[in-house]
Amino acid sequence: MELKYENSQVLSKIANTYHGENSPYFSVKQVYDADPFHPTKNPNGIIQMAVAENKLTYELIAEWIKKNPGASVCSPEGADDFKNIAAFQDFHGLPEFRDAVAKIMKKVRGGKVNYDPDRIVMAGGVRGAMEMVMFCLADPGDAFLVPSPWYPGFDRFLKWRTGVQLFPVVCESSNNFQITREALEEAYDNARKANIRVKGLVITNPSNPLGNTVDRDTLRTLVTFINDKQIHFLCDEVYAATVFRSPDFVSVSEIIEEVECNRNLIHLLYGLAKDLGLSGFRVGIVYSYNDTVMNLCRKMSMVCLVSSQTQYFIARMLSDEKFIDEFLSESAARLGRRHNTFIKGLEKAGIKCLESNGAVYCWMDLRQLLQEPTFEAETSLWKTIINVYKLNVLPGSTFHCKEPGWFRISFASMDDETLRVALERIQIFASEILNGHNFISNTCNGK
Amino acid sequence: MELKYENSQVLSKIANTYHGENSPYFSVKQVYDADPFHPTKNPNGIIQMAVAENKLTYELIAEWIKKNPGASVCSPEGADDFKNIAAFQDFHGLPEFRDAVAKIMKKVRGGKVNYDPDRIVMAGGVRGAMEMVMFCLADPGDAFLVPSPWYPGFDRFLKWRTGVQLFPVVCESSNNFQITREALEEAYDNARKANIRVKGLVITNPSNPLGNTVDRDTLRTLVTFINDKQIHFLCDEVYAATVFRSPDFVSVSEIIEEVECNRNLIHLLYGLAKDLGLSGFRVGIVYSYNDTVMNLCRKMSMVCLVSSQTQYFIARMLSDEKFIDEFLSESAARLGRRHNTFIKGLEKAGIKCLESNGAVYCWMDLRQLLQEPTFEAETSLWKTIINVYKLNVLPGSTFHCKEPGWFRISFASMDDETLRVALERIQIFASEILNGHNFISNTCNGK
Repeated sequence: MELKYENSQVLSKIANTYHGENSPYFSVKQVYDADPFHPTKNPNGIIQMAVAENKLTYELIAEWIKKNPGASVCSPEGADDFKNIAAFQDFHGLPEFRDAVAKIMKKVRGGKVNYDPDRIVMAGGVRGAMEMVMFCLADPGDAFLVPSPWYPGFDRFLKWRTGVQLFPVVCESSNNFQITREALEEAYDNARKANIRVKGLVITNPSNPLGNTVDRDTLRTLVTFINDKQIHFLCDEVYAATVFRSPDFVSVSEIIEEVECNRNLIHLLYGLAKDLGLSGFRVGIVYSYNDTVMNLCRKMSMVCLVSSQTQYFIARMLSDEKFIDEFLSESAARLGRRHNTFIKGLEKAGIKCLESNGAVYCWMDLRQLLQEPTFEAETSLWKTIINVYKLNVLPGSTFHCKEPGWFRISFASMDDETLRVALERIQIFASEILNGHNFISNTCNGK
Repeated sequence: MELKYENSQVLSKIANTYHGENSPYFSVKQVYDADPFHPTKNPNGIIQMAVAENKLTYELIAEWIKKNPGASVCSPEGADDFKNIAAFQDFHGLPEFRDAVAKIMKKVRGGKVNYDPDRIVMAGGVRGAMEMVMFCLADPGDAFLVPSPWYPGFDRFLKWRTGVQLFPVVCESSNNFQITREALEEAYDNARKANIRVKGLVITNPSNPLGNTVDRDTLRTLVTFINDKQIHFLCDEVYAATVFRSPDFVSVSEIIEEVECNRNLIHLLYGLAKDLGLSGFRVGIVYSYNDTVMNLCRKMSMVCLVSSQTQYFIARMLSDEKFIDEFLSESAARLGRRHNTFIKGLEKAGIKCLESNGAVYCWMDLRQLLQEPTFEAETSLWKTIINVYKLNVLPGSTFHCKEPGWFRISFASMDDETLRVALERIQIFASEILNGHNFISNTCNGK
C-alpha cells in the first residue's frame, strides 16, 4: 500500500529550512553514547566534555530533598496537595513560584536589582523563552546582530520557526573577543547595506562559549548602541550565578539603571538549568521590561509552560533562602576549584585558554596544533581529539568563530577521577601532535 | 526618561495578529477568580463550569503516591536518582517514559492498535504538540479544514505563530452535528474558490465541545476524504479514555488499518491532561505516521520538552498497569454516574443536551431560552447566566458554532455538593427565563 504514494506530500517551508542539524552541537549526546567512558567497564571510552553541565553539586539538592519530604506533590508527605497542583495550568504560574524566581533572580545578581514577580513569564526552558521573545520582536527576514563566537542553540531556537536571521558582530582573539562599538557599527552597516532590517542585538552573559562575564564598560557600550539605534536587546543571563572568580557578574538590569535607555527595548532571559544544574526540569524565564512583549509572551507560553509539579518543587526549594545561599556559594567554590585544576592540567600540556571567570567550560586555544590555519584543519584536529584521544569537545566553527583553532571544553560535567583521565589524555595528545605524530590525516577520513 | 520614547518600537507582525484574546475561552479563569463559589465562605459566588477538568479522581492518584514513595526523584525515597534525572534533557525523552506512554496509548484504545515507543515525540502539553505539527505541515496563509463547532484553543495554538488559517466545515444540529462528506467537499471547494490552499483537516475525537465520540463510519469518511484529496489529517485524541458509555471510542489508528490510506498524512495528538486529570503536568504527545514530520517535531520539541521530573513520575505510575487499569475503569464509572446525575438535573429544568458519551462537559441546547435566534441574544443569555445565576459556562459562539443557543457546560470540575447547587441554580434560571422574567435585557449592559 505504501508504494502507491510518494513519501513527499508537501510539507511546510519551515520543514525544509536548515535548522542547524549538521552542527556538532546537536549531536554531542549521540557521539558520546556510542562509546561512553566508564572507569572500569569502558576505560577507553569517550569522555563527555561537550555538554554544558554542572555535575558538581547534585548531592546538595538530593540532601535537601531528604530533609524536606513535602517539597514534592508526588511524595507521600506532599500528596495532600496533589489535587491542587495536578490540574493547575494557569499560564501566569503559581504565585509562590513567580515570587521565588523573582527572589533568586535578585539574589544571583548580588541583590543589586529588583524583579517584579508579576513580570515573570515562564517557559519550558530558556530555548522556548528565547523563541517566544523573537516571535514578538522580528518578522521573517529581519536580523538580530550577534557577537561571534556564539551559542549554537541560537541557530535553531532564534531562527528556525521565526525565519529571523542572525548577523555576526565579528570579535577576535586580538582583544580577547571583546565586543567593540566599532564591530557593532560595522555589522549594523553591513546588514543595512545588504538591505536587511536589523531588529536587535542578542548576547549571552556570561558568554557561551567564552566562559567569561561581559564587563560593565562593554555592557554600557552595548546598551548605548541599541538605544542609539532603537533596536531591541536580548540578554541571555542563564549563567548569572555560575561565576566563580572576580570580576563579579553584571546584569543588564543594573546597566539600565545607570545609562540612558528606552527600557521597552530590554528583554532578559533566565533559567535554572545552569545555576542550579536543573536542565532536565525545563524552567525558563522571560523578563521583559516591555509590557506588550511581556503580555504577548505570557500568552505564547501556553505552548511551553513549566510543569506544575516542577513549579511546586522549585517554589519550595527556592523559598529556603538559607539553603540557596549556601548552595550558590558552595557551587561557586567547587566550580572555582575545578576550573583551577583544569587550567593547570592544560598548562602542563602547554595549552592555554581564554581567561575566564564563569560558566562550565573553557575556550581552549589549540591554534598551535593546527596543521594550517584553516577550518578544514580545525575539523581534522577535532576528529582526532574525538576518535583517537576519546575526548568529546566542540570545535570553534560550531560557534561561528571567525578564527580556526579554538575549542569549547567542559570541565564540570564529570567527576574528579574522570577529569584526571581526561587531563592525562590531553597531555598525551598535545605532546604527540606537537611532536609530529600525524594522527590527523590518518583519522580525518575515518569519521 | 520613559517619556522620551514611545511605547511603540516596532514589534513583529505576529505581535499584532489576533490570537483569540477576546474569546471567553481564554478568560474562564479570570471570570471565576473574581467571585469564586465556596459552600460556606462564598455561597453566592460563581460556580466554575467553563473549564474542561475532571476533578473526580485525584484522590486515587494521591493514594497511589502514598503507596509508592520512590516515584518522585524529589522525594526522600527517590532522591538517589535525582542526579540522573535533574540534568536529563535528551529530547527523545526517558526510554521508560516513551515505553509507558506507548503502552497507555494502546490501553486507552482498547488494546486494538500498537504504538512504537520510538515514534513518541513529547511536547509540553497538547497545545505545543499541535503547534509543532502545524509548523511542519503548513505555511502562512494555508488552511486547515475544521468541523464547527470547534475547540477554541485551535484559534491560538494552530493559527497564531504559524500564520495558518482555519476554514470551517459547517455541522448542524439537524443531524446532531455529524460531519458529512458533503460538508467536507463544500468547505474544500469554498476554500479553493477563495484561492486558499487546503493542507489538511483537523478534528477532536472525542469532540470538544460536543462531548461525543466520532463514530466509525464518520471516521472512515474522513480518512477517505483526506486520502482522496491527499491532504493531512490531524486527530486530537486527548479524551481517548474519557469515554463512559457506548459506543466505544474508535481511534484513527484503527481506521487506517481498515481503509486505504497514505499513512504519511496521519498525525495523532495525545496527552495526559484529560484521561489522567494531569493538565498541570504538561504532557503532550505527537504520534505522526510520517517519518519526516516525526523527526522534525522531535527537533522542534526542544523548545517545549516535558520536565524530566514529570517524565520520571509518569513512567513509574504508568508502569503500574494494575493501578492504571483500575484507575481508568473507576474514572469512567465515576464520570458516567456524574453525567447521568447532571443530565437528569437538566431534564428537570426542561433543558436537553446533545447526546454524548465522553469528555467532561455537555453541549447544552438553550435555543428555546433565546429572545431571538441571534448571537446577540446568545451573548445576552450568557451574561445573564454568569452575572445573575453565577454559573460560568461558555457560549457556542466561542466554538464557532453556526447556530446560536448552544452552550458548553462542564460537569466534572466540581464536587457533588457544588454540582447540587449548580443544578438548583440551573432549574431556577430556566424556570424564571421561560416564565418571562426579563433578566437578560436588565443585565446585558452590565458587563
